[in-house]
Amino acid sequence: MWKFFKLLKGSSHSHISNQNAYLNDLLKGYSNGFRGQVASAGLLDLLDEGVPGVGTYEDFNTIDWVREKSKDRDRHREINRQKKQSDLALLLSLIDAFSGWLLMLLIGLLSGALAGGIDIAAHWLTDLKEGFCMKGFWFTHEHCCWKSNETTFQRRNKCPQWKSWAELMVGVPEGASAYVVNYLMYVSWALIFSYLAVILVRAFAPYACGSGIPEIKTILSGFIIRGYLGKWTLLIKTITLVLAVSSGLSLGKEGPLVHVACCCGNILCHLFTKYRKNEAKRREVLSAASAVGVSVAFGAPIGGVLFSLEEVSYYFPLKTLWRSFFAALVAAFTLRSINPFGNSRLVLFYVEFHTPWHFLELFPFVLLGIFGGLWGALFIRANIAWCRRRKTTRLGHYPVLEVVVVALATAVLAFPNEYTRMSSSELISELFNDCSLLDSSKLCDYISPGKGGERAANFSMTTNGLADRAAGPGVYTALWQLVLALVFKMFITVVTFGMKVPSGLFIPSMAVGAIAGRLLGIGMEQLAYYHHEWPMFKGWCSLGAKCITPGLYAMLGAAACLGGVTRMTVSLVVIMFELTGGLEYIVPLMAATMTSKWVADALGREGIYEAHIRLNGYPFLEPKEEFEQKTLAMDVMRPRRNDPPLSVLTQDGMTVEEVEGMISDTSYSGFPVVVSHQSQRLVGFVLRRDLVISIDNARCCQDGIVGASRVLFTEHTPSHPYQGGPPPLSLRPILDLSPLAITDHTPMEITVDIFRKLGLRQCLVTQNGCLLGIITKKDILKHMAQMANRDPDSILFN
Amino acid sequence: MWKFFKLLKGSSHSHISNQNAYLNDLLKGYSNGFRGQVASAGLLDLLDEGVPGVGTYEDFNTIDWVREKSKDRDRHREINRQKKQSDLALLLSLIDAFSGWLLMLLIGLLSGALAGGIDIAAHWLTDLKEGFCMKGFWFTHEHCCWKSNETTFQRRNKCPQWKSWAELMVGVPEGASAYVVNYLMYVSWALIFSYLAVILVRAFAPYACGSGIPEIKTILSGFIIRGYLGKWTLLIKTITLVLAVSSGLSLGKEGPLVHVACCCGNILCHLFTKYRKNEAKRREVLSAASAVGVSVAFGAPIGGVLFSLEEVSYYFPLKTLWRSFFAALVAAFTLRSINPFGNSRLVLFYVEFHTPWHFLELFPFVLLGIFGGLWGALFIRANIAWCRRRKTTRLGHYPVLEVVVVALATAVLAFPNEYTRMSSSELISELFNDCSLLDSSKLCDYISPGKGGERAANFSMTTNGLADRAAGPGVYTALWQLVLALVFKMFITVVTFGMKVPSGLFIPSMAVGAIAGRLLGIGMEQLAYYHHEWPMFKGWCSLGAKCITPGLYAMLGAAACLGGVTRMTVSLVVIMFELTGGLEYIVPLMAATMTSKWVADALGREGIYEAHIRLNGYPFLEPKEEFEQKTLAMDVMRPRRNDPPLSVLTQDGMTVEEVEGMISDTSYSGFPVVVSHQSQRLVGFVLRRDLVISIDNARCCQDGIVGASRVLFTEHTPSHPYQGGPPPLSLRPILDLSPLAITDHTPMEITVDIFRKLGLRQCLVTQNGCLLGIITKKDILKHMAQMANRDPDSILFN
Repeated sequence: MWKFFKLLKGSSHSHISNQNAYLNDLLKGYSNGFRGQVASAGLLDLLDEGVPGVGTYEDFNTIDWVREKSKDRDRHREINRQKKQSDLALLLSLIDAFSGWLLMLLIGLLSGALAGGIDIAAHWLTDLKEGFCMKGFWFTHEHCCWKSNETTFQRRNKCPQWKSWAELMVGVPEGASAYVVNYLMYVSWALIFSYLAVILVRAFAPYACGSGIPEIKTILSGFIIRGYLGKWTLLIKTITLVLAVSSGLSLGKEGPLVHVACCCGNILCHLFTKYRKNEAKRREVLSAASAVGVSVAFGAPIGGVLFSLEEVSYYFPLKTLWRSFFAALVAAFTLRSINPFGNSRLVLFYVEFHTPWHFLELFPFVLLGIFGGLWGALFIRANIAWCRRRKTTRLGHYPVLEVVVVALATAVLAFPNEYTRMSSSELISELFNDCSLLDSSKLCDYISPGKGGERAANFSMTTNGLADRAAGPGVYTALWQLVLALVFKMFITVVTFGMKVPSGLFIPSMAVGAIAGRLLGIGMEQLAYYHHEWPMFKGWCSLGAKCITPGLYAMLGAAACLGGVTRMTVSLVVIMFELTGGLEYIVPLMAATMTSKWVADALGREGIYEAHIRLNGYPFLEPKEEFEQKTLAMDVMRPRRNDPPLSVLTQDGMTVEEVEGMISDTSYSGFPVVVSHQSQRLVGFVLRRDLVISIDNARCCQDGIVGASRVLFTEHTPSHPYQGGPPPLSLRPILDLSPLAITDHTPMEITVDIFRKLGLRQCLVTQNGCLLGIITKKDILKHMAQMANRDPDSILFN
Repeated sequence: MWKFFKLLKGSSHSHISNQNAYLNDLLKGYSNGFRGQVASAGLLDLLDEGVPGVGTYEDFNTIDWVREKSKDRDRHREINRQKKQSDLALLLSLIDAFSGWLLMLLIGLLSGALAGGIDIAAHWLTDLKEGFCMKGFWFTHEHCCWKSNETTFQRRNKCPQWKSWAELMVGVPEGASAYVVNYLMYVSWALIFSYLAVILVRAFAPYACGSGIPEIKTILSGFIIRGYLGKWTLLIKTITLVLAVSSGLSLGKEGPLVHVACCCGNILCHLFTKYRKNEAKRREVLSAASAVGVSVAFGAPIGGVLFSLEEVSYYFPLKTLWRSFFAALVAAFTLRSINPFGNSRLVLFYVEFHTPWHFLELFPFVLLGIFGGLWGALFIRANIAWCRRRKTTRLGHYPVLEVVVVALATAVLAFPNEYTRMSSSELISELFNDCSLLDSSKLCDYISPGKGGERAANFSMTTNGLADRAAGPGVYTALWQLVLALVFKMFITVVTFGMKVPSGLFIPSMAVGAIAGRLLGIGMEQLAYYHHEWPMFKGWCSLGAKCITPGLYAMLGAAACLGGVTRMTVSLVVIMFELTGGLEYIVPLMAATMTSKWVADALGREGIYEAHIRLNGYPFLEPKEEFEQKTLAMDVMRPRRNDPPLSVLTQDGMTVEEVEGMISDTSYSGFPVVVSHQSQRLVGFVLRRDLVISIDNARCCQDGIVGASRVLFTEHTPSHPYQGGPPPLSLRPILDLSPLAITDHTPMEITVDIFRKLGLRQCLVTQNGCLLGIITKKDILKHMAQMANRDPDSILFN
């Protein structure tokens, strides 16, 4: 019997090869079914023999979690059975058990190495926009001036080995002509980098564009997008990410790093049969890989795991939690040993604050939260509107031109302002920075005690210069530049995110928030300095004390804006906690992120990733969103009241010809089997694909099967053949005997819960034991869209 | 109609008041059903009017997650509906939305305060065993000597205000008689404290004993144990915990703190209708409360949340994650502002290491992991065997005597050894400690450079005394004492855990591991000092360098032993990470805990909490354990092959008398309703309790209902009454129209998954649309026990 089944399966791939037909199936009614349990005993053999196509899914299809998980359990049982028989099998079972850990180790190593490479390359290319190292073209500005004796405590661009383009081309380091040359070179490099990035993406890997997180969320929820996590995507995304970041566009590398890590995970899965052959197991690996991505992006392994848990993953068993943690740590240590920033930290903007915060400061912190929430909500609306425009108008036809124009505008507008000229991570690093006395940044240009006149005369020298001080002219210049930078970043990020280059949102959002936070922080600081006798400062902020840390405000602003855009909560706080190291600042962080989330949620329920998922029409059943309507399963199921009745097979009443007619008349990918048309009592569910293959195979290879043969799904084939008729065809082996069925009165809230938690693709609906209809994942998504007054037809993959 | 239903419900409480009858129901077949959906429209009103007993469960019953969740959704919908109508309702809806956060704040504050109080009181009572402060009896030893000028850098027991009992009673501070007096006083106080603890537990709150974590896990999975989290338990557990810890018994306060925090959570739930009335919502709060417990126990808020997620919780939505985090932080900050240890840390054994570890050290770290795993597995076996002995033999009849005898043995054996005399947390703190030059502990009695002779002469003075040094006589004495302490702790903990006093396992396990770790650490250190030319030390450990940190070994040993006993992974690493602060030591931690878990799992799958759950027969469906057998639903369902058929009701064919007969003949707590006995097509499910109440009510209050009246569950009551017969009784309102049903061929692995994920209590089994049987949670637990060759009858609550 199983041999027959194997034969059937063997020819499966050739039959349904037309992807469009399958996509069509997907858009229409029900998709492939809740089966595999009957077939499971044989699946292991099938897999071992490598029959192509068995147990795999077509592109743009949803996987069946129940089937995948029971496939894995079968595999496990088989290994356990063999383990008892021989020592070799015991060894193999041990290797199998540890292959998950080995895979995690490899993912951690590879992702850490790639992240380090990206950091170094982006750093070098970014510096190339400004000048060139005479010691060797491969040095960055910092490395070029590393051993230069003259540069201690001076501005870093005073190092003689490093030549700006103006010095190289017109020979003068300063003045109008030098400025123009530098300006032109900056813009040219930006154009070259962005052009290269978009051309590479377009030519080799269209999937490499964007941040990738919406698609990864969809893939983790069970959707299949072939090639999205493939070799080409990895290669091109890594290269173009470096180019895009270096071009100065308002985008970050953090989101795409998650995509890169997931590509690594997916590719490395091919080394292990266990993960290559099972879509559910592979998704566990991808969950861990997304934790790795955040771990290397922010140097926050625990935050990465929580990000994967909170934001990205759909099915996250505890085993995965533990493995993700391991992989995230390995990646963080790999990155640290590469040491891309030369500070033995994983990120540029690691920061340590030394001043405690005061309870009353919670008020400005909450203000930052409100700003973050408002900006997050507005950004999402504006960006979605712009992306929809790109999809629907002619704008979308010129992706290369769009990128080049935006890059040109960004470079032209960014160069004059010091804070937009530098890369966003450097900007964030500078804004987070807590000014010490030796700091040469303009933001730290405070009037030092002793030359500040009458007020400063009150200072005792014991304050060590760490006291709040009056802002000097540098700070005032910086303030204006920061305001302009804020406005610029806010606008340019809206049009940048969603272009056809790899683009992350974390860094631009954080930059906007950090600017706003620093501005508020400096304002508070000056207020406290000049008005320390005000009641609100009384008691904790006397003259000569250090009470306000503008860098902390910048950090909270960054967290608030990032929270407003992504709606992350715990993971955001933990990532920021790992950046600052110290429980001290968790309360302000929570205040800012909570406010930001509440404000943003009040203006629009969705985060940027959910909004993009919906914009692209991916079939994603949001696990966080509560279904609040009082509809019943009967309101959602197909067929609707006036539709033709459900196409069903009977267990023993149909001939081969009738079945073939039903297959060609409909495009559903599965059919329920009932006892008889009269009773409509449900027996099981059979997949279209299996049916087609089985009948074709029987017609060609099984004696006596003709159009008039009866198709039987019953347990016992009648021993005596039908009087005079041809021998019957038994299809019991391909029948799924345990389709999940609910009653027509089941509330939709429970139905949605069942779909989410069990990972179903479809569910049958019965009334008093009789089959009434069917509900698919897509029906549910459409219904939810309808209930939320959205366009239900947007939920198609297109 | 609803009014009628309300009337029915109103009298519900009086009918089923006999708890034993209900317990009986529980032990027999199926429990209350998957309903509430039909009744939900009226539930809100019912709840508002406060009809007693509606929507609540009997003691020792399992809750229905589906029903509770849809009840909450109904409430939410109702609030949303009213919100649009008036401003007051809008305000109320806002209050409702924020009540969760307010509740978390309160739990954090209360638990933090209680934990602080427990710490202070336990400290004071522990010191009382040694002596007495002349400045005032309420001072601990440390506070007594706080301002004493003479005690800088001397041993702390040299402070004149603090008198040992010998000084007070016989007037001499040292000598044989003083030793005897101190010994006697130590033992007497230990006996008094432990006697008080056990007497209080026995008299006022039997539920206050043990660690509470197994029971909390069971409660969180949906079981009801009335009073387990009540006021009395909280009060008595807090007091007796202090007494038990102070008595010197080998137990910790960390586990019981989780129980205390959960009691706080449960009691504070009563302030908010939303949580008081809904068992599922309340469990979300309890999940957060258990995070709070660990947060205050270890000063690790993130670790606490992960502990709740990994170890304790059953249903943990993301919203809970975020709230748990908030509550854990509030509690940590409350505890910090109480500052019970006077070091502005949350725990006694916070530690900072300054020496990096070397790659080759992973080998001894893995050794510690193996030790931890072995000890964990052996401890679980020994402890379970001992507890089973206590349950089955006469030993269990003398709980007070048992506690007193164990306390006597502990005190008598502990006093002579300095390391067992001190409290376990102090011991751990001392073992974790990284010796500095000024340290006066015996463990830090190294031969300092300069007096160490020839070898030490090689030292340059730049090493600052931080180099590895030869152990002095103090260290050698300490080694022997530690070995004895290790053996003592290992044995005494086995008999202590499970006695009728509050007793946590975290601290004793950590103490065992810390001793073993420190021993290995000192061994390694001396090896490195005397044999630094060995190949394994070459290159990283030259003479005069600091290469081995024995304190780190102690910490890893503690983590490994705790991991072996509880099988925690991520949360354990994060808790330890929060204790040490610094990603540097996460890799050794992971190596030790991973090894420990693997070794322990190889020797026995269950952690101590699962083992105790099984020992006590709680109905707990382990979410981590994979069900590996290939059985089908038909093998598990009732009735079995030779049993009498299932008791079912028909939708219109039975009279009131027949139904009453069925109720009195059986003890099931619910009945499926079918179309007819012939067809067996499933219509719905009705609860015994509802049926009894409805019929009684109809018989007394509805005209014409007699024994011969027909009971109808159909949608339409026939308009014309039955010819000549009495009017029918329609019970449609109490019928659950959406019971979940699976087919008889559904594999049990999927069935178990469905039960776990949806939180079901029972599930009907059909074949071809006809009802065949029923599977309850208890059937599944029994089946799993059978498959694992355990006694299936142990799964009863007893």
